[in-house]
Amino acid sequence: MKIAVLGTGMVGQALAGRLAELGHEVTVGTRDVDATLARTTPDGMGNPPYVAWAADHPQVRLAPFADAAAGAELLVNATSGGVSIAALQAAGTENLTGKILIDIANPLDFSNGFPPTLFVKDTDSLGEQIQAAFPQLRVVKALNTLTAALMVNPKALADGDHSIFVSGNDAEAKKTVTGILESFGHTDVIDLGDITTARGTEMLLPVWLRLMGALNTPMFNFKIVR
Amino acid sequence: MKIAVLGTGMVGQALAGRLAELGHEVTVGTRDVDATLARTTPDGMGNPPYVAWAADHPQVRLAPFADAAAGAELLVNATSGGVSIAALQAAGTENLTGKILIDIANPLDFSNGFPPTLFVKDTDSLGEQIQAAFPQLRVVKALNTLTAALMVNPKALADGDHSIFVSGNDAEAKKTVTGILESFGHTDVIDLGDITTARGTEMLLPVWLRLMGALNTPMFNFKIVR
Repeated sequence: MKIAVLGTGMVGQALAGRLAELGHEVTVGTRDVDATLARTTPDGMGNPPYVAWAADHPQVRLAPFADAAAGAELLVNATSGGVSIAALQAAGTENLTGKILIDIANPLDFSNGFPPTLFVKDTDSLGEQIQAAFPQLRVVKALNTLTAALMVNPKALADGDHSIFVSGNDAEAKKTVTGILESFGHTDVIDLGDITTARGTEMLLPVWLRLMGALNTPMFNFKIVR
Repeated sequence: MKIAVLGTGMVGQALAGRLAELGHEVTVGTRDVDATLARTTPDGMGNPPYVAWAADHPQVRLAPFADAAAGAELLVNATSGGVSIAALQAAGTENLTGKILIDIANPLDFSNGFPPTLFVKDTDSLGEQIQAAFPQLRVVKALNTLTAALMVNPKALADGDHSIFVSGNDAEAKKTVTGILESFGHTDVIDLGDITTARGTEMLLPVWLRLMGALNTPMFNFKIVR
């Protein structure tokens, strides 16, 4: 499948690399290709710059948002939550029509330091805001509840014996996304319902962040025992 | 231990019954004893009235909040989140000094129907509000992330192979509460840190409610796989 991964950070790199490894034709979308390629130092979280990752992934193309989206059958939103709407606007509404968007972004607000708060919550969610702003997209919220390494390689933890969630209004889109998630190794993908259920998974972030602090590692995940 | 369980609903009944079964001297606190005893029909959620439960638990005394709190070494807040502060005020600040409070309440707001929203979240929590209003209490947030039957009998699900959390400012109080939780059968009690981490567990409620809808049962729990 032709897939555009919007976002060049740790989540975008993880998704793009894994999707390419699985045989998909992947383009990473960025706001400014030259600026992305010019960054040669680690980001604020200590992650290597995109160019270092790209050197190991020559099969993945880098392109402006609109170029990446135009050629894609499916999109992945791996941008920061605060810029997700702007990134999709830059991708061009004409390049979004009828396409599935896997929305991984969380509405994190770091303006008051760590831990971040959520800039939308409880009565609305980023997933819903994106679906409302781009009704031509079929938004599926997924993978926003675990660290990037486990999103794409769940078997690295307890042989994959843990859970993830999908939320979205389009049953067919959720089925396609669930297939991709299963190709990553996920075995317990729980369909929570329509896109409003993204409020629930986005509001998991605060306890996720506290757990990362208490456990001193991001290599954990929720399993829904039932 | 002498324990006061504040609240006569499903959560209060579950806690009071289990604590009494384990040999504790339990008093259930209520705002109005006569009104509690006068209710003979199920509540809005279909739970049997207190009198029906009390008939099977003659060793558990029913008393006004202040009376229950006065004689107790440890308190359990099993009231609805919206009335928790009022219940503790009714218990009398002089009856709270130095005591541990296990705070199970969630800040659920049903005023706009189901699913409820949270009347405090993200930058504050009900656990923090209670600790701030009653600095003489040693508040430990716990058990607010699973259904009442599993709070007190975790082995009823997957032989107890799932997780719960404690949040609080007083290490000794968290140790005491963890001991009580372990006496219920819990084997993975995660100390998230100070009372501000209650923001995380209270914000689990929205996804818990969606999961109850998707799974069509409240008999599930989070396991933190790591």
